[in-house]
Amino acid sequence: MNGEFEFIAGIRKMFPVPQGMLGIGDDCAVIPQEDGMETLVSTDMLVEGSHFLLEDIGPRQLGWKSAAANFSDIAAMGGSPVGSFLALALPSGLPQGWTDAFLTGFKEISDKYGFALLGGDTTASKDRLCICVTVLGRAVRGRSLKRSGARPGDLVCMTGTAGDSAAGLYAILHSIPREEEVPYLTGRHYLPTPRIKEGMMLASTAGIHSMMDISDGIGSDLRHIMEESGTGMEIDLNSMPLSKELKQFCRKNGLDPFDFAADGGEDYELLFTADPSAEAAIQVQHSVIGKVTDTGELVWKGTDKDFKGFRHF
Amino acid sequence: MNGEFEFIAGIRKMFPVPQGMLGIGDDCAVIPQEDGMETLVSTDMLVEGSHFLLEDIGPRQLGWKSAAANFSDIAAMGGSPVGSFLALALPSGLPQGWTDAFLTGFKEISDKYGFALLGGDTTASKDRLCICVTVLGRAVRGRSLKRSGARPGDLVCMTGTAGDSAAGLYAILHSIPREEEVPYLTGRHYLPTPRIKEGMMLASTAGIHSMMDISDGIGSDLRHIMEESGTGMEIDLNSMPLSKELKQFCRKNGLDPFDFAADGGEDYELLFTADPSAEAAIQVQHSVIGKVTDTGELVWKGTDKDFKGFRHF
Repeated sequence: MNGEFEFIAGIRKMFPVPQGMLGIGDDCAVIPQEDGMETLVSTDMLVEGSHFLLEDIGPRQLGWKSAAANFSDIAAMGGSPVGSFLALALPSGLPQGWTDAFLTGFKEISDKYGFALLGGDTTASKDRLCICVTVLGRAVRGRSLKRSGARPGDLVCMTGTAGDSAAGLYAILHSIPREEEVPYLTGRHYLPTPRIKEGMMLASTAGIHSMMDISDGIGSDLRHIMEESGTGMEIDLNSMPLSKELKQFCRKNGLDPFDFAADGGEDYELLFTADPSAEAAIQVQHSVIGKVTDTGELVWKGTDKDFKGFRHF
Repeated sequence: MNGEFEFIAGIRKMFPVPQGMLGIGDDCAVIPQEDGMETLVSTDMLVEGSHFLLEDIGPRQLGWKSAAANFSDIAAMGGSPVGSFLALALPSGLPQGWTDAFLTGFKEISDKYGFALLGGDTTASKDRLCICVTVLGRAVRGRSLKRSGARPGDLVCMTGTAGDSAAGLYAILHSIPREEEVPYLTGRHYLPTPRIKEGMMLASTAGIHSMMDISDGIGSDLRHIMEESGTGMEIDLNSMPLSKELKQFCRKNGLDPFDFAADGGEDYELLFTADPSAEAAIQVQHSVIGKVTDTGELVWKGTDKDFKGFRHF
């Protein structure tokens, strides 16, 4: 096994996608309908010990977060919410109260963003908890935003701030005292915000050419847009939006905020590219962090480092 | 935890389903579209140690079977194939050849029944293999067959034969010599046939009132139709269709074939109820095994036993 991305590339070659559909390689698959709409689908598996440790995350937070990661994939295409499917393999030692709290977190975020739970599967696991969420959304046919649409000259933009979630995880794993900025960062890690409304607004704005969500870290995610679009990028590290909490946390602990911002995953902000002439019309708060080039290379300005994001595999 | 069905009943109460959609409680969720069609979705999780042991099933068979169980859910509603999503948590010790053979089995059945692989997720597992397949199908709006449509007086019918898969599993687990009938039975266990074409034909036949697939064993599955339809049933054990291989296997090994036929799971045949006047028009090979009553009870004729099917939980 050479890693997740190589493995997926092999599967993609093995299973061709019917004409008109979009398959593996974007945040969601896209299935066209005859009524002028298209169905968006994404699935995500979270395994205890690989993605989370039960001692580090509470059940309500885990319920929220496993939905959030999937809702964010719908946001990443500019889709509107439809429903979700929840498959759980539950270790027998797990108390009923744990499962109830997990479902409470899952329900809170589902209600907040308008995803109905439409089905799932529940089964026993010998030891580790395993969660698989599948989510469905909807977009106007041909209007969902893909990773493949970036064009040289586009501005590279993102919503929100980068690196908060990774810094929150760092604080948890290193038991850093919960000073004022830490709860904000751990909150961004435990209870991330899928940018559903922002994604829908961007999908209905002319001149937005590509979009994805930041889940593996910008250093990795930018490369997905580049690969699917056949472009390069030039990113100015100093333009990356940092929260005051992240800056404060890093100053106190002698850390570089850009390590979190460029390599840290699970921000679930939206990364998109836009025609420069379209920027003024964008109604969603965003930062411009660079531009799309035709070089095929990812160039970081303002640093000597290279950032490659976070790999699960 | 009081068992799978009670747990699901709790979730169903907690998450109401939007009007017009069908959520938890059938083989698939149903999402209406504006173009006269509806989307069918089902998801299934298979965990090593709970659903299968790697020493008992080969990778190609497991790839086939994990798809088959899901395709059968589309068949159970009378849907036509659209696509599937495959999430895998792979233990690090699993050789590349294993994964390749798994994907080969998954591809064989996908190609045979016309389901495109449209996406998925691949991740590392610390120890056990976990597989989650989500499948999408399509039906004419309002024409998919639900568990809830059975009416007193309906004939209870099924396709194919019952109990082969469970007998195949018995032969595997008890290392019964592979005499002539055993490969047939283990084949039915390892490489089951989703009844896609039969399901579609039944959905377009007038007078078919309810349908589901036999996955937990008829003794359990009949009760799902009864519960969702608010009916009873009277099943004549002697009418249950048995393969000659199952009868031969049971005769040689001193076993009761009806134990497999009524309690054994994973046949993936279709169970449906039909107006008696419609039976002559049914183009699909089937057996009549009983009738729907208004008593709320499941009565077995021709036996003193009660059968409750197989429980995963």
